[in-house]
Amino acid sequence: MSDACIITTGSEIVEGIITDQNSKWLASKLISLGWRIHKIISVGDDHNSIREALECSMKNCDLIIITGGLGPTKDDITRSATAKFFKRKLIFDEKLYEKIEKKVKEFAGTVVKTVRNEAMIIEGAEAIGNDVGSAPGQLLKVDDGKIVLLLPGPPNEMMSVFSKVESRLLRRDRRFTRILKFYGIKESVLEDELRDIIYSHPEVKVAFQADYVKGITLRLTSSESEKEVVNSLVKKIYDKVGVHIYAEESKSLEEVVVELLKEAGRTLAVAESCTGGVLAGTIVNVPGSSKVFKGGIIAYDNSAKMKLLCVRKSTLERYGAVSEECVKEMLEGVMRIFDVDYAIAISGIAGPSGGNEDKPVGTVYIGVMCKGIKEIKRFHFKRERNTVRYKSAYTALDTLRRLIRRGEQ
Amino acid sequence: MSDACIITTGSEIVEGIITDQNSKWLASKLISLGWRIHKIISVGDDHNSIREALECSMKNCDLIIITGGLGPTKDDITRSATAKFFKRKLIFDEKLYEKIEKKVKEFAGTVVKTVRNEAMIIEGAEAIGNDVGSAPGQLLKVDDGKIVLLLPGPPNEMMSVFSKVESRLLRRDRRFTRILKFYGIKESVLEDELRDIIYSHPEVKVAFQADYVKGITLRLTSSESEKEVVNSLVKKIYDKVGVHIYAEESKSLEEVVVELLKEAGRTLAVAESCTGGVLAGTIVNVPGSSKVFKGGIIAYDNSAKMKLLCVRKSTLERYGAVSEECVKEMLEGVMRIFDVDYAIAISGIAGPSGGNEDKPVGTVYIGVMCKGIKEIKRFHFKRERNTVRYKSAYTALDTLRRLIRRGEQ
Repeated sequence: MSDACIITTGSEIVEGIITDQNSKWLASKLISLGWRIHKIISVGDDHNSIREALECSMKNCDLIIITGGLGPTKDDITRSATAKFFKRKLIFDEKLYEKIEKKVKEFAGTVVKTVRNEAMIIEGAEAIGNDVGSAPGQLLKVDDGKIVLLLPGPPNEMMSVFSKVESRLLRRDRRFTRILKFYGIKESVLEDELRDIIYSHPEVKVAFQADYVKGITLRLTSSESEKEVVNSLVKKIYDKVGVHIYAEESKSLEEVVVELLKEAGRTLAVAESCTGGVLAGTIVNVPGSSKVFKGGIIAYDNSAKMKLLCVRKSTLERYGAVSEECVKEMLEGVMRIFDVDYAIAISGIAGPSGGNEDKPVGTVYIGVMCKGIKEIKRFHFKRERNTVRYKSAYTALDTLRRLIRRGEQ
Repeated sequence: MSDACIITTGSEIVEGIITDQNSKWLASKLISLGWRIHKIISVGDDHNSIREALECSMKNCDLIIITGGLGPTKDDITRSATAKFFKRKLIFDEKLYEKIEKKVKEFAGTVVKTVRNEAMIIEGAEAIGNDVGSAPGQLLKVDDGKIVLLLPGPPNEMMSVFSKVESRLLRRDRRFTRILKFYGIKESVLEDELRDIIYSHPEVKVAFQADYVKGITLRLTSSESEKEVVNSLVKKIYDKVGVHIYAEESKSLEEVVVELLKEAGRTLAVAESCTGGVLAGTIVNVPGSSKVFKGGIIAYDNSAKMKLLCVRKSTLERYGAVSEECVKEMLEGVMRIFDVDYAIAISGIAGPSGGNEDKPVGTVYIGVMCKGIKEIKRFHFKRERNTVRYKSAYTALDTLRRLIRRGEQ
């Protein structure tokens, strides 16, 4: 299997001013084309850094992609740095320049002299057209068959140029991957449960990725020829811990919940206290959620809980706002107001203050209601304020997911 | 000036599944501490890649920071790969393990055997406590005085551990930086306005960073000895475009708005349609927001707009939900319900569908109300669904910020 390296150039990246937007997109593209990404390197706009990045990459990689530094200005040095590294000249391409000039006239009206730099092509390289911007990419085959591809820095230009050569980068030994996403189980516990299954086949690469708020992603990767082994492992995983699996591939928990509601033709509304809109906002992130999501009440304040959700004063006095009883009445309130099939209510102490002995910071009651049946659980999320809030929202979504799955079976 | 290198490990990064969250934050931290970032390298969870990344970095850098791969699972190999590279043993730290075990028990209840891996310390390294998660960082001084710092992968854990050693990484030749944050003005317009001021001093490095949703950040950096030049420029900038500046340093717009409300002793409630909780959720992100934020109505559905906010049926029929008239009634409704000083209402078409000729996707009405006075504006955000929603929420916050500033003056 061949290795690729991605080099992104730009001082604003290494100085922590902007996030490198290109490498993630390029990496997933190359993976799907059958490449293994050996490394991603970000360097500033200076000859030495680019030279060293090329040195590091040439050792192990058959494909090297460099993004950025193809513009007309003084700090656009990728062309010259690359030419220098491979001991090649830069040659001005008259015909190419005419095209570039025409394009720049359209965009900007005037054409500054430095635009000529964009038509300087590395000796032996092929210029790759850029449909979005003016600077073309360059594809260079170096003596030992390695490919060096120069792409513009702006993401949309980078994608445009890459798409022109994509088909030529397709490997025969492409990889096969299955991705499983879990919620409601700890990474270490999950790995323990699955150890005998997933580590039984050395030819299958196993990778866990755990996010406290968004759950666990498990990736099983093999060569295309071993795909049936991966599929058989996935089947065993479903048999053992399928209840915790909410999706495959890159689907999010909120997308899954909205889909389940759509399929079942059910509607949802929410009542939020400590999450303060995060739950609703997450659901509405999903395009088309308007078909199933009716709305919500953010009763951040006790008076709002009473006035809007008809939570009883006596309940708040007796049990407090962070209690099963309060969440129970919040559920009934939001059900009544929105006249929906499913309701979610959340009340908790996100912190930093507001905790006490029997209800420390991080204590959250999450309730889900359907057809008169209520399921209310107490959680203790030992994290900082906003992690508690987002974790509460996702835990509520997962609780609803499990309830729908049971209900609709 | 000494060079630093950041190595982020994780197959999910080089495989294009997640974006490296850590390097941008670390880079800007190190810059402010006086380091120059030589390069950022992302590699997968395998010994060879980590070894080669260390080789590439040891050549030129006095500080090498490695994030990720300190967890308990099989693919957490940063400890062993680093130890191997520097020809050191991994030593199990019994005392440290007791602490880790205690923490994991708290978090997870059960402690699996593999958690012991987190207490394996590189020979000669110092364990650095992790207040957020269980895996400690490790600081290793190698023979030639270079520092190698191992940090956990999850951003909040990485930040927690880094903060413990930050002061020890401070360089003598540290830089002086002022950061100004703007909202409600285009980057190109702002740069034009400021050109004569900011580009008048070559010793001051100027960097714009524009984020469509969160606004513009302007950084002015100089050597510590030139700080007064930077301060004088900042003063001039305030005089010219101060009205668009909402904060300095890393303060967010929502923090500023909550602060302003606290200082003025005012309360706020919101009515959201297309943003669907994002505005409320953003406000409640701020600790202590409960003192000023009473709650909100997510009237995603027209029936909810009528039933909860008393928007008239005739208004919806005549002008539609995305109209100045509807937002006007939403403001009155939420004011009445929560009995607050300030109200915000948002109604728009986030897309992907729902647009038409005179109200295309991205059309959003944003209203702010105080003491009977309403300020309602129509916007057209030409972006995809969720960018439109978050942009709407931040634009609403900035509208409120300007109104308070005027009102309380």
